[in-house]
Amino acid sequence: MPVNYQTPAPEALFPVAGVRLGVAEAGIRKANRRDLTLLALDPGCRVAGVFTENRFCAAPVQLCRRHLELGSEIRALVINTGIANAGTGEAGVQAAWQTCSGVGKLFGIEERQVLPFSTGVILEPLPVERLLGGLPACADDLKADNWHAAAHAIMTTDTVAKAASRRVDIGGRTVTITGISKGAGMIKPNMATMLGFMATDAGIAAPLLRQLVREAADESFNCITVDGDTSTNDSFILIASGQSGVEFTEADASAAGYAQLRAAVIAVAVELAQAIIRDGEGATKFMTIAVEGGKDREECKRVGYAIGHSPLVKTAFFASDPNLGRILAAIGYAGIKDLDVNGVRVWLASAGEEVLVAESGGRAAAYREEDGARIMQQSEITVRVDLGRGAARSNVYTCDFSYDYVKINADYRS
Amino acid sequence: MPVNYQTPAPEALFPVAGVRLGVAEAGIRKANRRDLTLLALDPGCRVAGVFTENRFCAAPVQLCRRHLELGSEIRALVINTGIANAGTGEAGVQAAWQTCSGVGKLFGIEERQVLPFSTGVILEPLPVERLLGGLPACADDLKADNWHAAAHAIMTTDTVAKAASRRVDIGGRTVTITGISKGAGMIKPNMATMLGFMATDAGIAAPLLRQLVREAADESFNCITVDGDTSTNDSFILIASGQSGVEFTEADASAAGYAQLRAAVIAVAVELAQAIIRDGEGATKFMTIAVEGGKDREECKRVGYAIGHSPLVKTAFFASDPNLGRILAAIGYAGIKDLDVNGVRVWLASAGEEVLVAESGGRAAAYREEDGARIMQQSEITVRVDLGRGAARSNVYTCDFSYDYVKINADYRS
Repeated sequence: MPVNYQTPAPEALFPVAGVRLGVAEAGIRKANRRDLTLLALDPGCRVAGVFTENRFCAAPVQLCRRHLELGSEIRALVINTGIANAGTGEAGVQAAWQTCSGVGKLFGIEERQVLPFSTGVILEPLPVERLLGGLPACADDLKADNWHAAAHAIMTTDTVAKAASRRVDIGGRTVTITGISKGAGMIKPNMATMLGFMATDAGIAAPLLRQLVREAADESFNCITVDGDTSTNDSFILIASGQSGVEFTEADASAAGYAQLRAAVIAVAVELAQAIIRDGEGATKFMTIAVEGGKDREECKRVGYAIGHSPLVKTAFFASDPNLGRILAAIGYAGIKDLDVNGVRVWLASAGEEVLVAESGGRAAAYREEDGARIMQQSEITVRVDLGRGAARSNVYTCDFSYDYVKINADYRS
Repeated sequence: MPVNYQTPAPEALFPVAGVRLGVAEAGIRKANRRDLTLLALDPGCRVAGVFTENRFCAAPVQLCRRHLELGSEIRALVINTGIANAGTGEAGVQAAWQTCSGVGKLFGIEERQVLPFSTGVILEPLPVERLLGGLPACADDLKADNWHAAAHAIMTTDTVAKAASRRVDIGGRTVTITGISKGAGMIKPNMATMLGFMATDAGIAAPLLRQLVREAADESFNCITVDGDTSTNDSFILIASGQSGVEFTEADASAAGYAQLRAAVIAVAVELAQAIIRDGEGATKFMTIAVEGGKDREECKRVGYAIGHSPLVKTAFFASDPNLGRILAAIGYAGIKDLDVNGVRVWLASAGEEVLVAESGGRAAAYREEDGARIMQQSEITVRVDLGRGAARSNVYTCDFSYDYVKINADYRS
């Protein structure tokens, strides 16, 4: 059961002109399950992405990077679940290439105009023939209002499909942004693959789009994962079709209309990223670790991750136990060598209530454990930390750690 | 149930001349439990220690550091369980000071000749009066052959008392080394406090002793925890009484006899550190992550910790599932930016059998999953990783991740 999250209804996921989606059953790893997704992009679409920095990055990620660097016009994305095609060596790269080739033949485009994505079990060979066999059905299914089906088809251990959509009025014209994501691993560096695909019908110049996808990732998917610490397949893609007629050139980077678009893109990305945490394996609570007062964003993130990764903190949240010592210990080992713990303050917050729990190196004088316990009963909890040494801030989103996490991950392959 | 570990019998823990131990029930947090331990050191003992680098280091750790830096002759150690006296601010320092003062009065020594240690719940005030009330009974209990009782009295969530002892013949004289440890937190940076106390009747010059305690920690307790990533109270102490008549000066650092002593001290420290992992909360398997072929020890440790910390790896070991992809993913995100994954080889080993499971960026050609599965059934498993880029090596010791880990840590305070 995801924490306070439901898949939006199909009609709440607005089509993005220029992008069509199709899904099919290819039998990649299990039968009777839609496991293949195709995105067909009209000519004129621009595409940018950010990818895992894992040294064992998967074969499809290697091809995605290469194809985007070549600067070809990307016309299709193909996503399979079941097998991650990671840790598969040269044979894996061949399999990803054959996938692109199959899509290319289907659409009469070149291999390098296709971006491939895989998610699922690592180290197993990708059954390319079955994948290729599913492509025609995928192509037959292509339609603009198919985001809901695609959100379902890219799931692995996810218990709920993840999607978000919004429309904004920019200078009298409606711009649409719609996206889907998958991923349900609970703990950042170990997340079973996280994928995010977003499209807008705004037109965005290539350099601006590359910047925007990084900015959006930094406020969303990179608040639940982090550079150099990601899974083998993590990918986040932003498509700009331009078919709304609203167009932003490089010169528009500081225009008001672009700021509107940027905010909406980030909001959808945050919603998609948070949905992954809300569906965290075994999660019963959604936690925001809001760190402020840092010298820079980097140290805020370190503290946020130290708290958000601590199995002791996460099990305490599962137990609704306001075990503040575990939070303070995590702040203390986050690696800020010159941190003055006497300047650190910590609050617990939920549903409009905020309680100061620690200051001056220990428990806050006015703090009563029943106040902490009341907040810990909630399903949406914020741990706010003021490091008291600067103006930087950063959020980390995470969830608690339950029996079910162990169960899901001990049983995943069986 | 600890993994392949039993507390040695009382008679297997050899007394160390110059060191007497006493335990008592002080009712620090729970009744009917020995929770207070005193070590009384004869004049002439030398003492050195290494401590947590957590910025929220506990009050007793602050006092230990100060008292050792002052260079006073340490004559007593006092250890309470139940309350960690961490995150307790200035009041906590006062409480630790009162503890030293109480011991000082009892023995007619100065406060700064006493080292205090606490372990247990963080952020709760230390009930000093109850602690002081227990000291006379502790003093009455002092005897040289009391290591077994002390090992029990320092336990918190430990399910088994941890101790090790050995005697070595150095130049025709018998030298004894005996130690105890506590700690059962499963995952390095979150270990509920880890404490280790060792004593030898060899005499060791102060600078050599300070070096030896660091070396021993680096091969043992620092292979399950790491600088800057430790709990608020972690401490490891080495006492050298000199009463065996075997004496090492600074000039003996490269003498054969000292090499013998050094090896024995490290062996006891490794046994004590491994016992903590064998008793890891909810542990069912003991894993050695042996990383070799690194450019330096530091990067070997990073890879070892990345594997040893991964909840996905640990749950796979719990499930006896040879999910190699999770191990490769962990190697990939360990942060070695220029790692050539094609040069990495991984073996699984147990009980004299070793199987090459990964090479050239993927699964080894000859690897059969039933071989991996057979090894994963064992309770002692080694993951050997050759990074293929140098001559450095390092071990990390860890355990698997079970339902019981969540249960223990969700229930700890109740």
